[in-house]
Formats: sequence, C-alpha cells, structure tokens
Amino acid sequence: MTALDDNSVQPSVTTGPITGSEKVYREITDPDSGSVLRVPQRRVGLSDGTHIDLYDTSGPYTDPAATIDVHAGLPALRGEWIARRSGEGHPQHAPSSGAITQLACAKAGIITPEMRFVAAREGMEPEFVRDEVAIGRAVIPVNRCHPESEPMIIGKNFLVKVNANIGNSAVTSSVPEEVEKMVWASRWGADTIMDLSTGSRIHETREWILRNSPVPLGTVPIYQALEKVNGDPAKLSWEIYRDTVIEQAEQGVDYMTVHAGVLLRYVPLTARRVTGIVSRGGSIMAAWCLAHHTESFLYTHFEELCEILRAYDITFSLGDGLRPGSIADANDEAQFAELRTLGELTHIARAHDVQVMIEGPGHVPMHKIAENVRLEEELCGEAPFYTLGPLATDIAPGYDHITSAIGAAQIAWHGTAMLCYVTPKEHLGLPNRDDVKTGVITYKLAAHSADLAKGHPRAQEWDDTLSQARFDFRWNDQFHLALDPDTARAYHDETLPAEPAKTAHFCSMCGPKFCSMKITQDVRKFAEENGLSTVAAIEQGMRQKSEEFVQSGKRVHLPMAQE
Amino acid sequence: MTALDDNSVQPSVTTGPITGSEKVYREITDPDSGSVLRVPQRRVGLSDGTHIDLYDTSGPYTDPAATIDVHAGLPALRGEWIARRSGEGHPQHAPSSGAITQLACAKAGIITPEMRFVAAREGMEPEFVRDEVAIGRAVIPVNRCHPESEPMIIGKNFLVKVNANIGNSAVTSSVPEEVEKMVWASRWGADTIMDLSTGSRIHETREWILRNSPVPLGTVPIYQALEKVNGDPAKLSWEIYRDTVIEQAEQGVDYMTVHAGVLLRYVPLTARRVTGIVSRGGSIMAAWCLAHHTESFLYTHFEELCEILRAYDITFSLGDGLRPGSIADANDEAQFAELRTLGELTHIARAHDVQVMIEGPGHVPMHKIAENVRLEEELCGEAPFYTLGPLATDIAPGYDHITSAIGAAQIAWHGTAMLCYVTPKEHLGLPNRDDVKTGVITYKLAAHSADLAKGHPRAQEWDDTLSQARFDFRWNDQFHLALDPDTARAYHDETLPAEPAKTAHFCSMCGPKFCSMKITQDVRKFAEENGLSTVAAIEQGMRQKSEEFVQSGKRVHLPMAQE
Repeated sequence: MTALDDNSVQPSVTTGPITGSEKVYREITDPDSGSVLRVPQRRVGLSDGTHIDLYDTSGPYTDPAATIDVHAGLPALRGEWIARRSGEGHPQHAPSSGAITQLACAKAGIITPEMRFVAAREGMEPEFVRDEVAIGRAVIPVNRCHPESEPMIIGKNFLVKVNANIGNSAVTSSVPEEVEKMVWASRWGADTIMDLSTGSRIHETREWILRNSPVPLGTVPIYQALEKVNGDPAKLSWEIYRDTVIEQAEQGVDYMTVHAGVLLRYVPLTARRVTGIVSRGGSIMAAWCLAHHTESFLYTHFEELCEILRAYDITFSLGDGLRPGSIADANDEAQFAELRTLGELTHIARAHDVQVMIEGPGHVPMHKIAENVRLEEELCGEAPFYTLGPLATDIAPGYDHITSAIGAAQIAWHGTAMLCYVTPKEHLGLPNRDDVKTGVITYKLAAHSADLAKGHPRAQEWDDTLSQARFDFRWNDQFHLALDPDTARAYHDETLPAEPAKTAHFCSMCGPKFCSMKITQDVRKFAEENGLSTVAAIEQGMRQKSEEFVQSGKRVHLPMAQE
Repeated sequence: MTALDDNSVQPSVTTGPITGSEKVYREITDPDSGSVLRVPQRRVGLSDGTHIDLYDTSGPYTDPAATIDVHAGLPALRGEWIARRSGEGHPQHAPSSGAITQLACAKAGIITPEMRFVAAREGMEPEFVRDEVAIGRAVIPVNRCHPESEPMIIGKNFLVKVNANIGNSAVTSSVPEEVEKMVWASRWGADTIMDLSTGSRIHETREWILRNSPVPLGTVPIYQALEKVNGDPAKLSWEIYRDTVIEQAEQGVDYMTVHAGVLLRYVPLTARRVTGIVSRGGSIMAAWCLAHHTESFLYTHFEELCEILRAYDITFSLGDGLRPGSIADANDEAQFAELRTLGELTHIARAHDVQVMIEGPGHVPMHKIAENVRLEEELCGEAPFYTLGPLATDIAPGYDHITSAIGAAQIAWHGTAMLCYVTPKEHLGLPNRDDVKTGVITYKLAAHSADLAKGHPRAQEWDDTLSQARFDFRWNDQFHLALDPDTARAYHDETLPAEPAKTAHFCSMCGPKFCSMKITQDVRKFAEENGLSTVAAIEQGMRQKSEEFVQSGKRVHLPMAQE
C-alpha cells in the first residue's frame, strides 16, 4: 500500500478559479516529438472585453475541467518526455554516462520539452532558455520521479520566483494540513515549495505533497536523516545521509538543500556572533564536525552526492549554513568564507552535469545587500541566487514578512533569481494557512517589484492594466487584476458594500466631490467634447493653449469641465 | 463654548503603557531660561536587569502618572517657551519683523528650547540641530498655537520620521473615532499626524485632535476651503483660501500642505498619463486654473502666504500635486516640472524665515527612486523630503502598505526625512483603527531599516538588543523589544501558549531537537565549561584547534556539547 492509499488521511484541498480569472492553456508544439505542450496561464477578462494573461503556478486545481483526486495524485504531465529522454525516443540525446539532466542536454545543444515549456511561460525564446541553462545561470528543477510538475525556470534573466516553505514540526500540524498548504501556496503564486517537515511521518507527508504538487518540491535531507538517528547529530553518517537522499530522490524531490559549505574551520568564525549559527542544517553539520573532529561528510563525499543527484536530475540548492541571523552578523567572515566554498562546489557539480542554486541570507541591512549578490555571482559562476528575505531589520517580529520583503525586493532587483518567502510568524511559530497566503502574496509583490526594476519585458503591462482600470473606476477589473482579488474586494466593501459603488466614480477615501481622478477625467472629457478626441490630440491641443499662455503672458481658454 | 465643551462628543482614547515598556523622562536644563525640559522615552526593561531607552512619540497617554481628560486637552508643554519668545522673556531674540520662527532663531544663532528638546530626543548636539535648521536641511514644525505638542525634528541627518494620515470623509467615520486614531497612531510611533478630513465638522474634528495631540499636526487647507464653496473648485478664491489658512493657523496646525507648484502650463503634461492627476489638492488646483484661465492663486499669492505662516511658525509642506499615481507615470515631465517650481518656492519661503518640507511620490519603480531624491535635494536646497511611499508596484491593492514600504525604506535610505504611511486600505477605502496600526508599524520598520542603512549612531543598538534576546531564548524580552509587542506575543502563543514556553530553548517552528540556536548555544557552553570562559577566549581556543586541524590534516579535539 502506498501512502496515498491510506484512507485515514483525507486532505481537503482548495479548488476552483481565482476570483475573476479563468485557466487557459497556450499550446506549443514540440518540434522534436510533435507532441503538444499545454502551458497554463491565468487569464483575467476585463469589462471592456479584452483580457490579460498572467503567469500561473496553480496547477490543475484552478481548472474546473480538471478532476482532482488527492488519492490518485496529479496526472504525469512530463511522463512521456522523461520516458523518451531515458532512451525510448531520443537515444541520441543521452550523454555517454547514461544520465540525462537538463544541464547535460543544454550543454549538448538539445532543447528539451521542459525548456520549450518554460520559454512559453516566460515569453522567451527556447534557444535563450537552453543557453542560460547550459552556462548555469538558470536551472530547471525537474526530478524524473516527479513527472506531475509543470516545468519552471529559475535564473536572473527570467521572472523572479518565489518559494514557500511548509512542513510540520514535532509539536504541530498534520499531513492533510500540509497538503492543503502546498495547494494553497501554489494557488497564490508560489513557484516552488519546500517541505521542511521535521516531525513524525516525514516520508508520508512528502509523498502526499509530491504526488499532488504541480510545482517543484525542495527538501533539506539532513532533517530526515537526523530523525533516523533520534535527533543526535553526532550519530549522523555519510551512509545514513546518502540513503536518505536516495529515498527522497526516488520519491521525486526536485531540489535539495545541502549544507556542504559548513567546514570545520569555519565554525569558530561564528563564536563572536550575536546570533551564532541560525541555519538548522548548518548547526547540525557544525555539531557533527566538532563531535567527530573531522571535516563535514557532505564536503568530503560531495562528488558521490553529485552522481546521485545527476541520476535523477535533481538540482543542488547549496545551503548557507552560516548565514547571518541578525543585522549584527551580516556580511561577516563566516558567511563569506562559506560562500567561497559554495563557489568551489558549484563548479564540481556542474562538471557532473548537475544544476546548482546558491542559498543566501537571512538578515542584512539595506546598505549591505548589493555586496551579497556581487560576491555570489563572482564566486559561484552566476549560479542562480536563492535568498531568504533578507530581513532589513530585526525589530519587528510579527511583521517579518514585511521587514524581509523590503530586503527581498532589493536583492532580487540586484539579481537574486528566487526568493524564499517569510511569513508573519517568522521567529515566533509555525505558519498556518492564512500566514502562508500572506507570505506568498507579499513575496509575489516583492518579486514583481524587482521584475519592474529589472525591466522585464512583460512586467509593466500588468501594472498599467490595473492602473488604467483604477483610473477608469472599473472596480471589478481592479479587483480581478490584483494579486489577491478577494482581499481587495473585501477591503473596498468594508466601507462601500453596495453594488452600485462598484462602478461609482469615487470611493470612501475621499467621497464623490473630492476624487482627484474624477476631476482629471472630467477635464479630459471636456477636451474630447471640444473636438480633441484622442489623447495625443488632447495633449497637442492643451499644449498649444499652454504655450500661448506662456508666450503671451495672458490667459488661455480652456474652461473647466462641469461636474 | 469651545468644541471640547460639547459633551455629546465623548472620545474614548487608549491609555496605559505599551506592553513591557515604561514611560521615563530624561531631564535637560535649558541654560537660557533655567527651566527643565522633560524628554519622553520608552524604556524597555530586560530580564537581566538592564534596559534600553527608545524614541517615544506616544505623549502622556502611555504615562500612568498623567491625568487624561480629552475635554480639557493636553497640558501646554511649550506654553512658557512660546510666551518668552514672544517678548516676555527673551526680547533680544525677536527678529525685527516681530515674527519669531525656529528658522529665524536658528539663523540668528539662537538655540531654542525646542532645539534642545529634539537634540535630547535624537542624541545629537543642540548646536548641530540649530545648524541643520538654519540651513533648511531640517525643520521643527511647531505652531505657537499648538503648545501641547512635544517638539520633533524632520531632516535627513536625524531619525527617519513617519506621518499617519487620519480624517473622516463625507461617507464615513466620526469625531471620536478620529481622536482615537490620532492617539492610537502616535502610540505606535507616528511622529506627526495629518488630518485630511473632507466631510462635515472639519473644524471641530481638527480642534479635538489638536488639543489632544502630542505630535505635530498637518493639514491640507484647500480641502476645507473647498467645503466652504460646496465642493466646486471653480468657486475657490485666494480670499477664501487665505481665511481658511488663518482659521487653521489659529487652531494650531503645525504644517500645511500647499500645492503651489501646480501651474497652469503643467496641466497639459498630465494628459497622456495612465492615471492623470491623483493628488486631490493637485486636481482641485488644476481644475481651478483651467476654469479661470489664469495662474494658480497659491502661486501668485505665495509671498502673502509666507507672511501668514511665519506669524504662527507654521512649516510649509509643499505638495506634489502632479505626483505619479502609477508605475507608468513615475518620474515624468509633469512631476519634475512641478518639482522645479517647488524649488523656486522653497527659496522664497526661506527668505521669509518659514520652514519648508517638499512632498514626494507616490508610485515609483525601484530603479527610479534614487533619482527622485537626487533631484529634490538639488532643486529644493536639501529641504526635508516627505514622501508617500512610494509604491514599488501597482498590482497589489490590499497590500499597499507593503508595496509602499519597499519603496519607502529605499527612498528614506537615499535621504527622505519623513515617510507618509500607506495602510492596507489604500486605493480601496478609509482606514480603520486596525489599519492605522498596521500602517504605522509597517512604516516604523521601513524608517528604522533606513536608519540602519544610513548608519544612524543609535539605530543598530535596538536590533542587537532584540537579536541577543532571541538568541538567549528570552522570549518576553524579545516581545517587549518588538515594535508591536502584543502581536509578537500573540503569534508565539498561537502554537505554544504555555507559560514555560516563554523560557523554553526552542519554539514551535523546529521543536526542541532541531533548534539551531540551541545547538550553537550548546557548543558555546561546552567551550565555556572547558575553560574558555569569555567569547574572545572561545574564539581563540576554537581558532587554535581549527588551525591545528588545517595544518595537520588531522583531527581536532573539540568534542561536541551534550544535549
């Protein structure tokens, strides 16, 4: 019996479209196989009959045409592609070693169906995707044992991605809750999920999540390895760790956090810190190193680990076990010493055709953020940077989704490819479902702010469409275009619940007489009614009047609009 | 009968200390008068018997020794200072015109009691304060008719300040609600309040707020002037506006937003914008200019306005009536044309000994933020910049406290002196009491993030104290040091409510076995028990062992700590 046959576990997951959106698929033909790739999009229909298509991470759950059965899991979208790559369809693509990773294909000049899929999602050329993967500046985390996932790409030249951490601990939460958190987080825009469970039923929880997850799943295998030795880091060994990695690889984990850069000689560098070692994996490995008087087995067995990850096409997420846990500890010697080692390991992994991301801080004041990206890119060959925030101050527990969104938006602007969300419960407790949503929405807006600042070609269209709806008082369009339509509508309805207010040319903030946007519209309307029928013409007409005014020093003749 | 005699209005305001804090006063003797200035501070006592004193904006409401009677108003803290400056004590300080502003005093080399008060609050030298005011790089908004306020300073070389907007509109809220919002906002850290009421009872609402406000109050007089002409901008006139300004000046308004930079010839520059003119004051003046075919009366009568403001020592907040209301419109010709005019007006006001701030945007993508500060400083002689956010994206209505905190933290780091908060209700409705708190806390953390990035000498002490408490598992200390102790505690207690957990060496996130900070502490404890009794000694000892390891290629001898 598999975990999903256990009828005592009955996850109840959220389904149905996001308010005001519908699920559409863009169909792309893969020229190599002739098969059709169906790329999901969130389509927001507008009241003027037009629409805008947005990037969609929510999987089949938001498609009313899909049949959702958590006991059966999602369909194996990538099943055929994986089978063909394994030798049944395109044997010429297999590298000599027999392992076929996205990186190996990219280096060999092969555009995989996954690359075509992400190219369509991002609005980029497939060849560009292949090239970014080949040089290691982007990764596509796709374990061949997780065929249910919809391919996505993480790299500085693509949309900034967001990861949501879920997972139970020894003191709280359950399997059904975690499955729903996964569905819920991806519904609101999480591009990947990390299952950080540390309590009981780790394997079973992960199996439920993987079989039902439309997004890549990451884990930190050392957590489960530690459970196997009853929580005593000293009892860990390479063999226990390796077997745990294989167990998780077989389940389909797409990327794994490995704290292989916590070297014995770096541990003393943390002694004078305000908050020492705050990474769980980092502290476990530091404890192991000290207990055994020897170098980290993750470091000494790194090449063996590469071989395992390559066999499944799992992506490394090289963990920052010595990341700063406070403003005081940011950018210190311990942090950057480890980063140098991560750079060394990056090149080893790439030589094994294994994709690599690099994890980053943590807690960093704004003026020290840019340096983190610069060093990471320099030391780690531009491997995608994947940061936790960083929090720009320590003084606001309860609001750390915001302290960290401030840092996250900036570090993403500077080049971080994926942001690990932080919820309002950070430092205080395990996030519940509401916290997960708050964290995801907060990080989506931070990521999008960075996309704007980086000039991503499709980013500003969304802002402009929403702002135009706002200016036109198309309230429902404004809600539907929001990252979180339900909250936007609920806030509006708190003070003006009546349906006519949805088209009213004002809101409760200023009331009808004081609305600046209404006055502006009235001015424009006047101009139109007087023969200045296009925006360009209005501007030209108004400019002319204005110039007459400036040149003559007299009055211009533009009477105001009537209310 | 004054407004406060109206017993049908019964505001209920929040009193009592912030959880875990007590009100203390630092006493400073003013050498000129010999009188004692009592500078309020929020003292957080820690479980080890030490304490930290934080900047406190909450006024007498958090002092259990104070008697609060909203019908009597707050005591006139500055009454004696104002009287002496008016000629009863220090006639030699009066400039020849008879008006005695902070700017006039500063230029004359006089350190006012207000300057000494703010110097003590900020931990700066009084002479430095005087110099910053004299050159116009900082302002102390203190209407002589608002003696109840505790002086504060706004300038890039001081702590970044936060303003909270309150005020009713035609469709919602009441006088008691607004009085409580003022007390509530300053309790959580608002440095100034703006009363933006546009509905009925504008004068009365303002009177209640002023007589009970420990922080400076700002207004936008054009709103009330517009009420006087039944909401028709065309019926406005200089005379109606002037009388409104004098009415508000007599009540004690400390700074006034004046949209004198919206010139007739700039209005056409907004025609092709996505969101036109979004400032209420800006759109009112644009409508007036077009209706009358003439230049703004605020611009043509600006020097008369300076004379009125000087007589009361009211500070100009020169409004950005053409600020961008969307990402698409950021940093455009209309915005910067107005800014150049504000620069011109700044120098006129200063010549009249009137203090000036400059208001700024709005909606600006991250990569266009720095330019706003650079231009403002260049064009407006480094007058304190006072920005609304800016929002770094338009796509998240319902979360605009966060989209704007991202922009606010950055623009403050670059030099903005005061941030106008944005609440979650922005663009959707009028904020309620909860929204006010969320907005204030969010902006306090953004402001503090900027203080850290700017290297303000006292900023990081707060972060370090909290992080040390976190690392030591002093949960109550961590809560009490938080910007919002109640929320921090509530979030913790959701998953671990039992009292022992307040000293437990773990939390619900990882459970007892997986706590990285506990493992780090155990490592340190081991070192201490083995004779390495200070942090420096631990580091030295660990370094030595580590170096032996590196040099010998063998094992070091640091057995791990026992759990």
